[in-house]
Amino acid sequence: MTLLITGGEVVGPTGRFAADVLVDGETISALLAPGTWSGQPETTIDATGKLVIPGGIDVHTHMKLPFGGTFASDDFDTGTKAAAYGGTTTIIDFAVQRTGEVVQDGLAAWHALADGNAHIDYGFHMIIGGVDDDALKAMDQLVADEGVTSFKLFMAYPGVFYSDDGKVLRAMQTARENGATIMMHAENGIAIDVLVAQALAKGQTDPVFHGLTRPSILEGEATHRAIALAQVARDTPLYFVHLSASEALAEVAAARDAGRNVFAETCPQYLYLTLEDQLGAPGFEGAKWVASPPLRSKEEPHRDDLWRGLRTNDLAIVSTDHCPFCMKDQKELGLGDFSKIPNGMGTVEHRVDLVYQGVAEGKLSVERWVETIATTPARMFGLYPRKGVIAPGSDADIVLYDPNGRTTISAATHHMNLDYSAWEGFTIAGKVDTVISRGEVLVDRDGGYHGRKGRGRYLKRGLSSYLR
Amino acid sequence: MTLLITGGEVVGPTGRFAADVLVDGETISALLAPGTWSGQPETTIDATGKLVIPGGIDVHTHMKLPFGGTFASDDFDTGTKAAAYGGTTTIIDFAVQRTGEVVQDGLAAWHALADGNAHIDYGFHMIIGGVDDDALKAMDQLVADEGVTSFKLFMAYPGVFYSDDGKVLRAMQTARENGATIMMHAENGIAIDVLVAQALAKGQTDPVFHGLTRPSILEGEATHRAIALAQVARDTPLYFVHLSASEALAEVAAARDAGRNVFAETCPQYLYLTLEDQLGAPGFEGAKWVASPPLRSKEEPHRDDLWRGLRTNDLAIVSTDHCPFCMKDQKELGLGDFSKIPNGMGTVEHRVDLVYQGVAEGKLSVERWVETIATTPARMFGLYPRKGVIAPGSDADIVLYDPNGRTTISAATHHMNLDYSAWEGFTIAGKVDTVISRGEVLVDRDGGYHGRKGRGRYLKRGLSSYLR
Amino acid sequence: MTLLITGGEVVGPTGRFAADVLVDGETISALLAPGTWSGQPETTIDATGKLVIPGGIDVHTHMKLPFGGTFASDDFDTGTKAAAYGGTTTIIDFAVQRTGEVVQDGLAAWHALADGNAHIDYGFHMIIGGVDDDALKAMDQLVADEGVTSFKLFMAYPGVFYSDDGKVLRAMQTARENGATIMMHAENGIAIDVLVAQALAKGQTDPVFHGLTRPSILEGEATHRAIALAQVARDTPLYFVHLSASEALAEVAAARDAGRNVFAETCPQYLYLTLEDQLGAPGFEGAKWVASPPLRSKEEPHRDDLWRGLRTNDLAIVSTDHCPFCMKDQKELGLGDFSKIPNGMGTVEHRVDLVYQGVAEGKLSVERWVETIATTPARMFGLYPRKGVIAPGSDADIVLYDPNGRTTISAATHHMNLDYSAWEGFTIAGKVDTVISRGEVLVDRDGGYHGRKGRGRYLKRGLSSYLR
Amino acid sequence: MTLLITGGEVVGPTGRFAADVLVDGETISALLAPGTWSGQPETTIDATGKLVIPGGIDVHTHMKLPFGGTFASDDFDTGTKAAAYGGTTTIIDFAVQRTGEVVQDGLAAWHALADGNAHIDYGFHMIIGGVDDDALKAMDQLVADEGVTSFKLFMAYPGVFYSDDGKVLRAMQTARENGATIMMHAENGIAIDVLVAQALAKGQTDPVFHGLTRPSILEGEATHRAIALAQVARDTPLYFVHLSASEALAEVAAARDAGRNVFAETCPQYLYLTLEDQLGAPGFEGAKWVASPPLRSKEEPHRDDLWRGLRTNDLAIVSTDHCPFCMKDQKELGLGDFSKIPNGMGTVEHRVDLVYQGVAEGKLSVERWVETIATTPARMFGLYPRKGVIAPGSDADIVLYDPNGRTTISAATHHMNLDYSAWEGFTIAGKVDTVISRGEVLVDRDGGYHGRKGRGRYLKRGLSSYLR
Repeated sequence: MTLLITGGEVVGPTGRFAADVLVDGETISALLAPGTWSGQPETTIDATGKLVIPGGIDVHTHMKLPFGGTFASDDFDTGTKAAAYGGTTTIIDFAVQRTGEVVQDGLAAWHALADGNAHIDYGFHMIIGGVDDDALKAMDQLVADEGVTSFKLFMAYPGVFYSDDGKVLRAMQTARENGATIMMHAENGIAIDVLVAQALAKGQTDPVFHGLTRPSILEGEATHRAIALAQVARDTPLYFVHLSASEALAEVAAARDAGRNVFAETCPQYLYLTLEDQLGAPGFEGAKWVASPPLRSKEEPHRDDLWRGLRTNDLAIVSTDHCPFCMKDQKELGLGDFSKIPNGMGTVEHRVDLVYQGVAEGKLSVERWVETIATTPARMFGLYPRKGVIAPGSDADIVLYDPNGRTTISAATHHMNLDYSAWEGFTIAGKVDTVISRGEVLVDRDGGYHGRKGRGRYLKRGLSSYLR
Repeated sequence: MTLLITGGEVVGPTGRFAADVLVDGETISALLAPGTWSGQPETTIDATGKLVIPGGIDVHTHMKLPFGGTFASDDFDTGTKAAAYGGTTTIIDFAVQRTGEVVQDGLAAWHALADGNAHIDYGFHMIIGGVDDDALKAMDQLVADEGVTSFKLFMAYPGVFYSDDGKVLRAMQTARENGATIMMHAENGIAIDVLVAQALAKGQTDPVFHGLTRPSILEGEATHRAIALAQVARDTPLYFVHLSASEALAEVAAARDAGRNVFAETCPQYLYLTLEDQLGAPGFEGAKWVASPPLRSKEEPHRDDLWRGLRTNDLAIVSTDHCPFCMKDQKELGLGDFSKIPNGMGTVEHRVDLVYQGVAEGKLSVERWVETIATTPARMFGLYPRKGVIAPGSDADIVLYDPNGRTTISAATHHMNLDYSAWEGFTIAGKVDTVISRGEVLVDRDGGYHGRKGRGRYLKRGLSSYLR
Repeated sequence: MTLLITGGEVVGPTGRFAADVLVDGETISALLAPGTWSGQPETTIDATGKLVIPGGIDVHTHMKLPFGGTFASDDFDTGTKAAAYGGTTTIIDFAVQRTGEVVQDGLAAWHALADGNAHIDYGFHMIIGGVDDDALKAMDQLVADEGVTSFKLFMAYPGVFYSDDGKVLRAMQTARENGATIMMHAENGIAIDVLVAQALAKGQTDPVFHGLTRPSILEGEATHRAIALAQVARDTPLYFVHLSASEALAEVAAARDAGRNVFAETCPQYLYLTLEDQLGAPGFEGAKWVASPPLRSKEEPHRDDLWRGLRTNDLAIVSTDHCPFCMKDQKELGLGDFSKIPNGMGTVEHRVDLVYQGVAEGKLSVERWVETIATTPARMFGLYPRKGVIAPGSDADIVLYDPNGRTTISAATHHMNLDYSAWEGFTIAGKVDTVISRGEVLVDRDGGYHGRKGRGRYLKRGLSSYLR
Repeated sequence: MTLLITGGEVVGPTGRFAADVLVDGETISALLAPGTWSGQPETTIDATGKLVIPGGIDVHTHMKLPFGGTFASDDFDTGTKAAAYGGTTTIIDFAVQRTGEVVQDGLAAWHALADGNAHIDYGFHMIIGGVDDDALKAMDQLVADEGVTSFKLFMAYPGVFYSDDGKVLRAMQTARENGATIMMHAENGIAIDVLVAQALAKGQTDPVFHGLTRPSILEGEATHRAIALAQVARDTPLYFVHLSASEALAEVAAARDAGRNVFAETCPQYLYLTLEDQLGAPGFEGAKWVASPPLRSKEEPHRDDLWRGLRTNDLAIVSTDHCPFCMKDQKELGLGDFSKIPNGMGTVEHRVDLVYQGVAEGKLSVERWVETIATTPARMFGLYPRKGVIAPGSDADIVLYDPNGRTTISAATHHMNLDYSAWEGFTIAGKVDTVISRGEVLVDRDGGYHGRKGRGRYLKRGLSSYLR
């Protein structure tokens, strides 16, 4: 089965050039000077006027995550289908080991969730909720045998996923030996819990207090601390998830200037939304945007700094931290007590568009768009060159993007299993045109969907190829 | 005429993958999954075990530069042939406008030097030695019509190329409007001249005093100053040539963290050689390594910092500042007075190897090697995607590099017109295997040379595509 | 003649304590526990409720300075009398050597201006307008014989006082040897002149363009440059006059963190007044506040940063840069061309009050008030312990300050020879109560003036005792 | 009873001047111009050639501290007598509340230790080992009623004195309200415990591993974290005890540049002694220098940085952390297991001398010597102007110091209850000449001791007067 994509402009991290792309079966067979292929493809797609980019890779999703007595509302079926609609052809979801649980059991449970359900390819990071001798040994086994090469720790959420600094250090030492990357949720959860308790004691129960009790300085602090611990562990590769604050960015930038293997992602919500305008919405509406770290104040330079960080590569990746909870029955668990609102938003469908909007507004180059949503994700998490690049031999995960299109986001039209949109009414000066996964057109130019549950495959990942 | 390069591993800035490369005439026609092309190439080169990279681009050479009463010893014939031997298939040389001269006359003179002499393609930057109303208008014309989109100014060499801060500012303002890049030799020449005069007055005439009278703090100072002036000129793109000092690197890093369009190159000599070991050689031998900025002290962290800067991309490019002068009759002009020694070294033949040695020693990734010697040079100076990338439609400038080869440098074997080598006895754990320029094999695996004087073409360059 | 000051609270840089102060003739004879002196003073002043502080020292005044075809409107008679009214009992004025002039002639001219005219004691710094071999030798002589131990250079005002970086370096080297302090006007005058010419060419002639053509980044740049040059000169003590900008403060702070002998003063105008509110006043009124560096924009954090710098001691001194020009006939020289407006304001009478207002507003401790207006000035410029401290043996220069008083500033009531006030209508929550110079009451509690022209003496100063 | 000290030079933080000092009873009655007092003192001390300084204040001692199953070997009798010999006339010792204990009981226990035993005046800080609601209330009571205005927390020593970040935050919030100062032992004890366990598991039991398991980066980390928590608590005054590491100093300097109320002390051991030369001594001898933080490596710039910090005032105070344990029976508890060696050294007798040695070596000005050992301690901890200054009304705590004397330290001659000296053989280019406490000569010029157990009084302290 051959497919020829003609007339488009291939865009990669270092630039763009006109080329036809030939797909043979599941992989890319050739990049060709326009019009030079003499064969007869079974299918041809005219990409004139379109940007031809590697399929998006969202390295931070939480399908079906249990949180605060409920579960994230997207499963691997609904969530990966929505991702496909939005031009994302690979996700890396977080398998979960809880304190006391056997790590491999947690991984198996996540395989069970995904198996036969995903529309697109997927890998797993592993959350280590209980660092101990067994868990450290399990990390080695997952790297060696399971294609799980990144482990997430939490400096937040005491009593749930929290690891103290000794546990963080031990996990880092283990990763330093087996080559894995430590992913970090960097907020000082111990201090935050004091502020939360004090707020609730004063009757401050509205969603906005979720933000006010998690000051950005405490994200900066935890970021600094994790970097110090990674230095004690002789420069373990360290990746900060969902970086939201100027203070944290400054710590990452300083470490990177020093040549350290320190990396970070941010998420669209931190680039666009604010504590005042969204989290501080009247009544309980702000619950829609309760997530951790929280949306930050627009009085402070966080958003401008994050865009700048994307330009400077101090922020290497844009992921979503996709973790949707419906308002009805789920977010409502926190009526009268913000600390009980399940944390998370649903964005897996909109990431490619929302970052492109930065290109449209002149905040980011088109090359950096591709790099932050596809190429660096693949390199950082051991999927390159199978994913993240349009090259011969790579999986034919390809998105045609229309820079002249227009997209409007609404809960009425999105495909996520979510009864509201955190992005209701946002418009994008661009449009996902065609989405191809391993040579198969999942979404066509007319919006027709040709994917199916279960076609997505588990990706055993290698070690990061993004280290210095 | 078709050429197929088979079995190699294509290396680019984001990674590597196995692919065959098909060349049709002067350009690359296709990248193909290995073994998948069914046609019959006229020529096949087996690249098994080799790295297939875009031809090297040296953005800083000075063929035939007049300096101190003599001329750089390589002309466009000898210099570009030597470059080809070393895997460099494009150079950008500096045309010179002296104070009082018409800019376009200076450019014409450089065309006259190069026309019919070059073995490889070449472009020109323009040195503006006399900033005034006419020169500023000429800058506009060169950008619009001549394919010269970068202009070099000197904060050093008072009375020769020196521009005071007002002239620098005016040139930056002009560049800000026409889109060009300002290239800067950043040393405080006014202060240096005082130190030089004081040294000579004390009878300190040996070559090492060339270094001791140009302290690194004065490169850092000028770097800071140029960045400030570029900010006054509303963020003119600014590129520092031959950055040699930790202090200067720190200024560049700070500006880049702030999101400024500030860039820098370094040169192999600053990565390897030192004031003590080379410039301070006994007697007059140190004259071999007299260049400005000077080699720095090994007691200070300059070399480690520069390697780190290459990793962090605070140093974007490695060029050579190729400006050779023979010891006999040329360097000897400074016997008894270091200030009369012509400034410069010859390295155009060894750059690709010398940076690869950093890869061999674990100081740099193979991806960064390609990026710093070929891809970023093309992007920074308006040659991408014609040069600097292996992609369909690009010029077929391709180097096969043998990571298992070995190269030893010596004046006895080099091809530059130079009676000594600044790198005598250096060995590289790698080897240039085959060099192809616009589809033509210039250097074959056995060292056979098939190029010829005059085949190199002038490249009209566009504006930088490397801005943020 | 004995004078006893009873019941007051003596305030010094490290704190305050109740004490009686006994003066015998011109000097302080004793500090005594309250009420313990058994002798009979000829005079007693009841200082109950008053702060007893060393007389103010204004280290930056320009009596009768020639500028732009006119002369500063205060001479040593009017200016020092006004100073006395405001609690300042010592000034250090700037003697001037112009290019080509013999330094000692410039000093003699300034002695001629001051001799027999001053109401309070005074010293001289020397402006070196023409650094050459003779001037450098003269610096040695002034330090050795004349009690002039500080020399001011200008990086601004090309063609007038401007020294290029080579001259700056040579003067710093000389100072490094003879122990003197280099004082620096840090603005990049060469670049500023380009901006001024461009503004005038566009018809931008109003006073506000004086500010807009001297951007703060160019003060920061010059500050960085001077610090670098001082480092080349092996850490010459370096003192920045009239620091006005956040960028400059950051450079000073960084140098001080590194342990360098770098110091700075600011002036009240930069702590309170702004480009928008004063310099940008309608019509020609802004001319009142034309000075260099200019008032800075209130959109930027300069004022807050300067107050913080006073707290952190990155700003060691508050001086006035007193250089008054009347609106009529003087400032009016620049009608239609801001570049012709004589630069300067008159503040010598109000400095003690204006800094105290910071104490009243909680921006500065009362200890830092005394330290920045009296003690550090004396230490920095070789007058300690003769001046700047209330201690046995010190000159009896003492001010009683009433923290419960109130002062309103107006041209109608001030004593400077100036037809407007830069501070019209400002009110201070404090009041100069009594001013004593070498044991003599110059200003009494009722405002009666008892000083006289000519009683002030020239102070031969020693080297700075403030170095690290 | 009157005492006149004649002919000396009074030295304070801003400079020095010749003056006679008259003492009447317990307090200073007057400072007089030399030779001007006409009365007849009962006693006269000739201070010709001597520096007359305020008595030393050591703000960090641990008399009789229980640690690891034993007690610090000096009690209030032996320890304060030794202090007096060394020119220290005031100490502030740490009363201890252990987890679960009533704070006031801990204070009462310390009063019981001191009462009737001290030779010099003393105050108490309070260690809060168990932050809870009761302890926070007790802090208020101690500030209001007991003259205890500073509280020490530990980020080190989990399971002993350790407070987690939530507890630290709550204590800071309480201090912010009642005006007290938080003192911090900043080391990441949780991470250190992991390193200690790993070292012991590998059989690394020698004293040097005490240092190697407490890397300086973990002091820097904790310092950064405490500063962040203090910012969350709206700029609680924060004072770091025994700062030992460059990384920690950099954090303090950054906070201070930002205008924060952040302060630090260092101790003589960190200024002179090293991990290699002392802690790494052969066999068990290194145990003599086991303390926390540990002595730092001489390969790193810690010592130079600390001296520079003293010059820049980023280090405000030199204290001793006096906490002696004899080798016999005490340090020996850790034979075969470095983690069981009681932590601490004895230096209370040598602090004034050891800091003076920095003056002798040109590392510190004589003014900073006085400021760091006496004046700032008094200001920082609410004792000024009663202590720390030579002024009328102040306690007559006065030391005559002989800059031409010489002191050699040895266990054979010291007065501390300690069977070895951490400073054996150190020589000082200066000598404590005479020590006066509240008007009483404790140590005379011939070394005669006239003090007595029990004469020292408890000092109720006020709030810090050193805030910005």
